[in-house]
Amino acid sequence: MSTYLAGNTPWPLSVPVTPEGRRLLDLVAGQLPEIAASAADNDRDGTFPYATFERFRDSGVMGATVPAELGGLGVSRLYDVAAALLAVSTADASTALALHMQFSRGLTLTYEWRHAEPGAQVLAEGLMREMGAGKAAVCGAAKDHPSSTTTLVPDGTGDWILSGRKTLVSMAPIGTHFVAHASALTGARTPRLAAPIVPRDTPGVTVLDNWQGLGMRASGTVDVIFDECHVPDRNVFVRDPVGARNDAVLAGQTVSSITMLGIYLGIAQAARDSTVETLRGKSGEPPAGARTLISHIDANLYTLHATVAAALTNADTYSADLSGDMDERGRRMMLPYQYAKLTINELAPAIVNDCLAVTGSRAYATTHDLSRLYRDVRAGTFMQPYTYSDAVNFLSAQTLGLDQDNNYMSVRAAKSAPTT
Amino acid sequence: MSTYLAGNTPWPLSVPVTPEGRRLLDLVAGQLPEIAASAADNDRDGTFPYATFERFRDSGVMGATVPAELGGLGVSRLYDVAAALLAVSTADASTALALHMQFSRGLTLTYEWRHAEPGAQVLAEGLMREMGAGKAAVCGAAKDHPSSTTTLVPDGTGDWILSGRKTLVSMAPIGTHFVAHASALTGARTPRLAAPIVPRDTPGVTVLDNWQGLGMRASGTVDVIFDECHVPDRNVFVRDPVGARNDAVLAGQTVSSITMLGIYLGIAQAARDSTVETLRGKSGEPPAGARTLISHIDANLYTLHATVAAALTNADTYSADLSGDMDERGRRMMLPYQYAKLTINELAPAIVNDCLAVTGSRAYATTHDLSRLYRDVRAGTFMQPYTYSDAVNFLSAQTLGLDQDNNYMSVRAAKSAPTT
Amino acid sequence: MSTYLAGNTPWPLSVPVTPEGRRLLDLVAGQLPEIAASAADNDRDGTFPYATFERFRDSGVMGATVPAELGGLGVSRLYDVAAALLAVSTADASTALALHMQFSRGLTLTYEWRHAEPGAQVLAEGLMREMGAGKAAVCGAAKDHPSSTTTLVPDGTGDWILSGRKTLVSMAPIGTHFVAHASALTGARTPRLAAPIVPRDTPGVTVLDNWQGLGMRASGTVDVIFDECHVPDRNVFVRDPVGARNDAVLAGQTVSSITMLGIYLGIAQAARDSTVETLRGKSGEPPAGARTLISHIDANLYTLHATVAAALTNADTYSADLSGDMDERGRRMMLPYQYAKLTINELAPAIVNDCLAVTGSRAYATTHDLSRLYRDVRAGTFMQPYTYSDAVNFLSAQTLGLDQDNNYMSVRAAKSAPTT
Amino acid sequence: MSTYLAGNTPWPLSVPVTPEGRRLLDLVAGQLPEIAASAADNDRDGTFPYATFERFRDSGVMGATVPAELGGLGVSRLYDVAAALLAVSTADASTALALHMQFSRGLTLTYEWRHAEPGAQVLAEGLMREMGAGKAAVCGAAKDHPSSTTTLVPDGTGDWILSGRKTLVSMAPIGTHFVAHASALTGARTPRLAAPIVPRDTPGVTVLDNWQGLGMRASGTVDVIFDECHVPDRNVFVRDPVGARNDAVLAGQTVSSITMLGIYLGIAQAARDSTVETLRGKSGEPPAGARTLISHIDANLYTLHATVAAALTNADTYSADLSGDMDERGRRMMLPYQYAKLTINELAPAIVNDCLAVTGSRAYATTHDLSRLYRDVRAGTFMQPYTYSDAVNFLSAQTLGLDQDNNYMSVRAAKSAPTT
Repeated sequence: MSTYLAGNTPWPLSVPVTPEGRRLLDLVAGQLPEIAASAADNDRDGTFPYATFERFRDSGVMGATVPAELGGLGVSRLYDVAAALLAVSTADASTALALHMQFSRGLTLTYEWRHAEPGAQVLAEGLMREMGAGKAAVCGAAKDHPSSTTTLVPDGTGDWILSGRKTLVSMAPIGTHFVAHASALTGARTPRLAAPIVPRDTPGVTVLDNWQGLGMRASGTVDVIFDECHVPDRNVFVRDPVGARNDAVLAGQTVSSITMLGIYLGIAQAARDSTVETLRGKSGEPPAGARTLISHIDANLYTLHATVAAALTNADTYSADLSGDMDERGRRMMLPYQYAKLTINELAPAIVNDCLAVTGSRAYATTHDLSRLYRDVRAGTFMQPYTYSDAVNFLSAQTLGLDQDNNYMSVRAAKSAPTT
Repeated sequence: MSTYLAGNTPWPLSVPVTPEGRRLLDLVAGQLPEIAASAADNDRDGTFPYATFERFRDSGVMGATVPAELGGLGVSRLYDVAAALLAVSTADASTALALHMQFSRGLTLTYEWRHAEPGAQVLAEGLMREMGAGKAAVCGAAKDHPSSTTTLVPDGTGDWILSGRKTLVSMAPIGTHFVAHASALTGARTPRLAAPIVPRDTPGVTVLDNWQGLGMRASGTVDVIFDECHVPDRNVFVRDPVGARNDAVLAGQTVSSITMLGIYLGIAQAARDSTVETLRGKSGEPPAGARTLISHIDANLYTLHATVAAALTNADTYSADLSGDMDERGRRMMLPYQYAKLTINELAPAIVNDCLAVTGSRAYATTHDLSRLYRDVRAGTFMQPYTYSDAVNFLSAQTLGLDQDNNYMSVRAAKSAPTT
Repeated sequence: MSTYLAGNTPWPLSVPVTPEGRRLLDLVAGQLPEIAASAADNDRDGTFPYATFERFRDSGVMGATVPAELGGLGVSRLYDVAAALLAVSTADASTALALHMQFSRGLTLTYEWRHAEPGAQVLAEGLMREMGAGKAAVCGAAKDHPSSTTTLVPDGTGDWILSGRKTLVSMAPIGTHFVAHASALTGARTPRLAAPIVPRDTPGVTVLDNWQGLGMRASGTVDVIFDECHVPDRNVFVRDPVGARNDAVLAGQTVSSITMLGIYLGIAQAARDSTVETLRGKSGEPPAGARTLISHIDANLYTLHATVAAALTNADTYSADLSGDMDERGRRMMLPYQYAKLTINELAPAIVNDCLAVTGSRAYATTHDLSRLYRDVRAGTFMQPYTYSDAVNFLSAQTLGLDQDNNYMSVRAAKSAPTT
Repeated sequence: MSTYLAGNTPWPLSVPVTPEGRRLLDLVAGQLPEIAASAADNDRDGTFPYATFERFRDSGVMGATVPAELGGLGVSRLYDVAAALLAVSTADASTALALHMQFSRGLTLTYEWRHAEPGAQVLAEGLMREMGAGKAAVCGAAKDHPSSTTTLVPDGTGDWILSGRKTLVSMAPIGTHFVAHASALTGARTPRLAAPIVPRDTPGVTVLDNWQGLGMRASGTVDVIFDECHVPDRNVFVRDPVGARNDAVLAGQTVSSITMLGIYLGIAQAARDSTVETLRGKSGEPPAGARTLISHIDANLYTLHATVAAALTNADTYSADLSGDMDERGRRMMLPYQYAKLTINELAPAIVNDCLAVTGSRAYATTHDLSRLYRDVRAGTFMQPYTYSDAVNFLSAQTLGLDQDNNYMSVRAAKSAPTT
């Protein structure tokens, strides 16, 4: 097991801050040996870890972020969710990425349940009760396939027809529901952003088996096609009109994605722990180069832990505080998240690279953990939000007071907007 | 004033964690404009900011880390001390470095007062009462001048004769007492480390005016000569024999120095704030290079804040906990401190460099703040403990389980040990 | 085709320095489209590019570094060999790595043919005539499998018995001969280093099909087992006794490996060219982050070209000059090679990483060139000589005047030396 | 003396490529001890090295780049000029920066003499004959003081009136002539760029003594005021109209400035040599951190040498070839220059920083060479052309085929253009 879980450690993100978080960490920690045992095979074959997710379901992990009142574990802090994902990631990052889908949905649905208008509350509650009972695995489907713009069109009866193709939908092999972000063509001049909940057995839903990633190969990150699916109006979360310039949504986008930082931190942690074990196994005085690199590996890992922990703490603080300007709250949540993301995208690969250099050519074999970690860690660059260029635009605009639309979902939708 | 103090900010180390810490921050924040106003002149002339320290004395700042029972402000958290030093450093790093001397003595003397044997408690209490009353400015004098080994020799009456020359003693221009780390030649085969308290008016004490630093030019970091000074036995803190391999002392070394991280963070913060102000003052769309660099500057600054804050929180946690193995406690305090130090020594200069690149040639004038910050920030490399090579040795030894003496004071003393 | 071959370019290593080098570059340039076309499939399946090597044989490429007098193309400059490998590598780095084996043997055998004692000259000439005729593909087999020490034992008739297992033997699928570096147990107290030439059809030779590399998957880099193979004495190059401290051998080690720098440069070039093409294909003003990164990608690529070109020019200069101290010549050849290797191991992966960041998530698909380049480029860290730690030891020893054995083959042999 | 001049070395830019270049290097090499001896004092006091420049004049160095036919040494290769500046810079970078002014003028005036229209040829010849005779020290004055736009206005008799204030004019304390880049208000709708030659004793010329640089403190880089100076028409080089989009001028801008790369390389070289000397002077095994850093310092220095040498070779090649498209020639000269400049601005400071870390706190004293080198090296960021942001714009525009005006002199003039 990773040394970072072995009792007292210097790593900041190793200890959850709430009892619920500690319970979750205990639950997943107990499953790490089995997760680790199948990681290499699943990676090689691109196989989704079905058995692992059955254990997650049976042990209550799949309802971790569902409120206790609705049958879940009630883990509400982003910090604790990231700590659990970190632990899973040290055993297998693909598993953590798929699990993140479920955790993320619980966190955002909880917000809907607590603060949305009544219809949305009902929708959120129903879905979460199923999650808490281990019956629902809910996948976010945010990104359109390049060939498609996902739309909701009124069916004339008050319900909707959903069409489009989504890509990069993790955990889809076991997904029971999809949150398919779409442009709703309401008849108004501007489409609205909307998030219909679509059960997998809806006629017209096809889940492909087409993930061909450089890494994260067991995460089941595939395309899902919606071919004129009927969606009852009560199953649609309606958002802003495209182009609304609403920074309040940055809060939800932060909550939805920030805990992924724990996954990439877990990869770096696993690489470091593997390398330390290799070096400790060698006889004789370690050479100068190895001593120097391992010092920097550790310092960088500590820096990453601290930075991710700080961004999570910041997000938890603002997430719990609805008293002020909601636009300002959105920006204050997104800002440190993006700082931490820039840093993790630089330091996590650097740590893995240094680990390869210290470990030597054995690390280049597909059978060595580091060769998987080297591929997995690179996915971090592509975590949404934002792309590198979008992050530069957002951060510099915030600092320099430049005007721009910060809602990347809206910007994307505007680009591909069908004329109405 | 620096933007980081302007209300809510994303920077983690901008808010103290105790009421005493907030009071201290308020006290120094009120003095920042005056400190900033004289920074350039003091830097150019290498002048110590006497007036600033008079205000520090009058406002109680000089007793900040003295327990309230002894007349001080009772700031006990390293976190809060570093936050105050950060604030001062955004106005002038030299002033913060000198002030650190006093804060550091209060912190370490408080430990003596609480936990040492009775004689040392009396000594610590007396000194701190004077600090709390604004009468004592106490300088640590740890490093021997290359030409000298500082020794305590018994005078035959139970007291001691101190001889030697110390270097890099900050705040010495106004120092009323010096803690002159020395090897006590007790007659035993191995000398003991000892720390005599020497009032400035002791016959034989000479404070030179010989600071010629690349930066930190107003910090009064000079040599102090002890020429056969008489030191009563009651004024000597006695430590371990040289070579004792006592990792418990790492705790005191951490407490004594870790808050300096706030100073170098403050330099990076000041450079960033200055650069943002320059960019905001320009008309037109900022160029691509500037937008990209400012994003990285901000991300690096956030990373530094988070890392320093985490190391300080770690040190505060262990500092307050005397329940376990004291050797282990020492190592656990020093480890994250050194991680953070490696990181600050890399990122703080990187931030200042990027700020120079964005600001342009005007920043290269001696009259521009950035040219001072560029020189000041480089001092961070030389903060004790440790040197770069000693840090690599310590960190890699901890991680790889290598055997070595971690007490750099003892190692130094052993190298220059006079035969007894 | 890569833009770096498209007429005048700023890239230093795009133009060979001799007519023979230009002829070789023309020959391989004509084959790049076919090499590129099969690169993705060969990578996915781990298939050796047999058809490509048949074309190499038919067109004379397999005899490129054989002197014209012996039927080859007579390319003698390391610079030109590296330029050809760079070109091949822009289409497929695995192919370039396998081809390097053959080129490297021609270069080192030419030295034997010109300067060795008569028996070795005959051996080298015979082998090179076969290479020039397209009949021989000669693999160096330098590295012992961890389970084995490769030895030559006298058979009592004046010939030898070779036993051992070699690993990381590129081009082995089509190898007709193996240069199997071994310790010759001559009966003297110290074994000698020796390099027997072993035809593939020698009884006891088994070429495995066991390459499981993270990248360079089409390079046929497998293990070769020698099970009591009979080797006539005339087929053995005899070198120094183990531990001879002979820096002259650094010349041959440089010649044998330095052209591999072209391979890793080619990977970086291919990544850059792919990324520029992607960016040029997008409409609208490129975002600030992309403009900044592409500038650094280009600057880093230029820096790598210049550095590799300089190290090759240096090696060519000393390679042609046998007039001075041969130990000094060896060190002067190895030193810039190792400087360039440290730099390429840092900058080539950095370029590929930045290309991924600019290109976006499409680059993470296994079907995208960048996902192969990301895996291939990492092999550079493990090019022999040296490992990272050995490089630090060598370079710092040279600069600081420290004493050590610089012959890594001898050091390795000494570590695993069987007692005689 | 710097080790890089001590016989055979691995550093590429240590050997000039022409006999004239070698003669120049020999001339300056003989003067290095005296230059080095006064460097610290001149830096501290901000004093121009008058005596050094008298020796330069007496030994012919001031005419180094003047053709032999006109009384100079006839050094025509940028490579050789940079090699000489590098040598001077290892002793004192300020001296090299001032000397660069004179070398640069010889190079650009030679082009005018050979290729301009007859009037300009006469002007160039006359000035160069004085330079060759040691009578003229000619300063380029390119940058306007922020408070001023330098203009040439017709005086009604066919001559001109020059007014304005130039800043950052190096070598001005001994300058006999100034090339004062100005906007000539010819009466046409668009002003023309022009370069009048102004003798120092022209009424209205005032050379200030106002250099307050962080480093390069002995370079005499001051402001020069032109207060309605009369300039005969024959003394004006007339260039393009502002906004002409003439990339051919990039050639002259490259020739004028690229040899400065040698200066910043010399600073890095001096830092490295000083650090190696310090390490060699210590007893005992060097620590792991120092061994690792010195290896990277050397690899980075080699990389810089190679990169700068390649950019200079490229510039020399195109500089000598006037056969093709002059716009294309300009871009091809500027491109590698800017690649090398980005790299030197990153690696030269990195080398100096690492040298400080290895050397330890003694390096932070103003009396230590490294503390001067730390300040001097930072000037590289501000070498024209280009600023960091302008370089990103130029390089990305070249690579991505974006349209923009590459003539920074023209862009600047357009920004501050007075209406005519």
